[in-house]
Amino acid sequence: MSHNARAAALCRLMIGDADRLRIAIHRSESDATIIDCGVKVHGGLEAGVCLARVCLADLATVQIEASAGAPWPAVTVRTDHPRLACMASQYAGWEVKSDKFFAMASGPMRSAAAREPLFADLNYRESADECVGVLESGKLPDAGVCRDIAEKCRVDPAKLTLLVAPTKSLAGTLQVVARSVETALHKLHELKFDLNRIGSAWGCAPLPPPAKNDLASIGRTNDAILYGGHALLYVRGDDASLQDIGPQTPSRASKDYGRTFADILAAYNHDFYQVDPLLFSPAVVSFVNLDTGNTFRFGETNPNILKRSFGE
Amino acid sequence: MSHNARAAALCRLMIGDADRLRIAIHRSESDATIIDCGVKVHGGLEAGVCLARVCLADLATVQIEASAGAPWPAVTVRTDHPRLACMASQYAGWEVKSDKFFAMASGPMRSAAAREPLFADLNYRESADECVGVLESGKLPDAGVCRDIAEKCRVDPAKLTLLVAPTKSLAGTLQVVARSVETALHKLHELKFDLNRIGSAWGCAPLPPPAKNDLASIGRTNDAILYGGHALLYVRGDDASLQDIGPQTPSRASKDYGRTFADILAAYNHDFYQVDPLLFSPAVVSFVNLDTGNTFRFGETNPNILKRSFGE
Amino acid sequence: MSHNARAAALCRLMIGDADRLRIAIHRSESDATIIDCGVKVHGGLEAGVCLARVCLADLATVQIEASAGAPWPAVTVRTDHPRLACMASQYAGWEVKSDKFFAMASGPMRSAAAREPLFADLNYRESADECVGVLESGKLPDAGVCRDIAEKCRVDPAKLTLLVAPTKSLAGTLQVVARSVETALHKLHELKFDLNRIGSAWGCAPLPPPAKNDLASIGRTNDAILYGGHALLYVRGDDASLQDIGPQTPSRASKDYGRTFADILAAYNHDFYQVDPLLFSPAVVSFVNLDTGNTFRFGETNPNILKRSFGE
Repeated sequence: MSHNARAAALCRLMIGDADRLRIAIHRSESDATIIDCGVKVHGGLEAGVCLARVCLADLATVQIEASAGAPWPAVTVRTDHPRLACMASQYAGWEVKSDKFFAMASGPMRSAAAREPLFADLNYRESADECVGVLESGKLPDAGVCRDIAEKCRVDPAKLTLLVAPTKSLAGTLQVVARSVETALHKLHELKFDLNRIGSAWGCAPLPPPAKNDLASIGRTNDAILYGGHALLYVRGDDASLQDIGPQTPSRASKDYGRTFADILAAYNHDFYQVDPLLFSPAVVSFVNLDTGNTFRFGETNPNILKRSFGE
Repeated sequence: MSHNARAAALCRLMIGDADRLRIAIHRSESDATIIDCGVKVHGGLEAGVCLARVCLADLATVQIEASAGAPWPAVTVRTDHPRLACMASQYAGWEVKSDKFFAMASGPMRSAAAREPLFADLNYRESADECVGVLESGKLPDAGVCRDIAEKCRVDPAKLTLLVAPTKSLAGTLQVVARSVETALHKLHELKFDLNRIGSAWGCAPLPPPAKNDLASIGRTNDAILYGGHALLYVRGDDASLQDIGPQTPSRASKDYGRTFADILAAYNHDFYQVDPLLFSPAVVSFVNLDTGNTFRFGETNPNILKRSFGE
Repeated sequence: MSHNARAAALCRLMIGDADRLRIAIHRSESDATIIDCGVKVHGGLEAGVCLARVCLADLATVQIEASAGAPWPAVTVRTDHPRLACMASQYAGWEVKSDKFFAMASGPMRSAAAREPLFADLNYRESADECVGVLESGKLPDAGVCRDIAEKCRVDPAKLTLLVAPTKSLAGTLQVVARSVETALHKLHELKFDLNRIGSAWGCAPLPPPAKNDLASIGRTNDAILYGGHALLYVRGDDASLQDIGPQTPSRASKDYGRTFADILAAYNHDFYQVDPLLFSPAVVSFVNLDTGNTFRFGETNPNILKRSFGE
């Protein structure tokens, strides 16, 4: 079953439960299906869990859990397909843009378009009958955007479903902090770690209060991962490479570590591209080597920065 | 889909899984369906989760979770429909009584009867084909009680399903402590807060050991909320009103705060109606303002009173 | 619905979702169905949850949860049928052996064979159309082993399903630490406690990192229960018997308590049968007496031994 088919099945359940999820279903002029999870509707926590699962091609379990001692619930994610669920689907690696629209796009449609160099590394692509993508955006995509995406995915627009939520919405915030494992994998891929070594993974991060606008929410969701996230990776292979690459893996390995993401951005005059790309990783990354039985843990959470970021 | 229809669908699943849930299904002489979750049968934890979901018209997710550092699991509840799930359905606002029977009734049948003044405030009522209610009682309702309820709900008794559990049963205890969010909303409604401002909510409270009789169990379940409960409310609107009403919201704002509920009752010679009605609220209430991005938290948990109440 | 039928239904779901679970389905030469959850395939966390549920005849809820303050997730289990789910099904009381094969077997097929003396005490056996068992083993069973099991269960080999995972696999490790409640019940049964008194139960234990071989993994999974496990038992009857038997119940009542299981085994020259059989119990056992409302808790967790055992 393709990732797109898995996500499409989940979308059909969402559509059938739209009232409970407080989402709105639109048929675009382009004939694409738009599932609004927080742009013109409220959405909410359940819509956020569904959105996170769609991002992950429904190859992961996403839970909201109490977090003893902390004032915020935690979002946990676990998967036995971390490389494909997180990198081929969840990673927001596709910039969708037109004159009037911009969004970071994730979800399994990325592997149908397979335009990112990453897909050569992953050696994965899908030829899909129907495609599903998630747009992190404060606007619903217009017909032109939908047609462009469909074309890149090589499907008829009528076979395209796009879910949309701004970062500042509850669903949008939740789906971002469900990326504790994904950010660890992306960082490891940047560090040239062979992701095939990672067989299963579990991660958690606090669910921050959504901020008043998308920029501030991006700050808080990043901080949730950078200063409160933990990724536990079940890997194969030798220990030496883990001990070697490990210290570079968590967020604190970055020169930009130690301030809220909002403060970091401000220090760079809000030029996102000046932020150290190696900052983006969980606070803690643990490697459990299934071949040797040894565990290596790097980094630590930083509750003080979380408090400052979340506004307490 | 009406709240009653949602709850009825869940009841059908319960009936099909009666053995696992250790519940008993009776057809009342009145033709109503009675689901005994703890009166003459044992019921248990799963029956309690189902009962809590029925109370909430299946518009909420109810979980039992480990609570690190605490000897009791926690019951968490989350919903994107807090006003209707908690107030129009879960709140035990209907006193069902006859010569031989008394129960506090909750569940979606309340919105079919819509006899409580609250329903004018909520501007919600249902004209339902079938009705579902939950009775907190140590006795099963007789045919007269069933007919009376059905009549008030304007349904044929054959279309009425009543679930029954005493407070002291495991299922009964669990469904009460699944009211962390509901008690916060009820208190806020008493304080004239506009509940339409609350879009989503998450709450938790410890699952106390059921006590040996219903009165003692009422004490412990109240303490679980009053001294161990946390409600996290995602709201809209201005901050000033939150800062204004916030300090009055958690249980500690009440003059009766600070002793176990059993001790409070004893001090009032067990006259329940002398207890400050504004006592009933979680230990901690957090407001996350989605419009401003600000969070306001009021109150604190009180592990010492919980220990005393739970008998450790 | 028989335990074997419940487990068989769950196996059919697993077979339909084999790719996501990373399990392999084989038809044995004997015509039995073999579900490999970690021998020649990777399996993973979800396969482990399914495996634990099959062990428990799907009469329990098994969850992976974050564990605040601890570096490992926790595995929780809860059931309203502890005596039958844990003792008649989950307990690994059947030694399956041939010239070339050895496994500790659990699952509902045990109650179809009903060869263990335990089944006389439980007064439970099943005459099943199809049988399901779980083998803790690093090898898949050959046709002779399958035929022998089927014969003992009085079913045609084609009606037998065997799930297999070595302790050192992720699924195998998870299904062992889902035994927090079972080990408490087994110990209580050894102490002649009437298991009919236990109506519901909840338990948790940390999910240890799988070790490099089965022996080392047996050490860690035992330590997870012995030094990190908690079983909360909802019981009926008198308090005196709980106060009497309680102190003997947790692991620390054993003379072998206080060292990692690997160290204990080494001290006995790896003769498993010299280990005190009364060692096998959770670190903490709590009795909640539903008849008296009193709670009795015995034992305490031992994070230092867990750290040493898990290799941190």
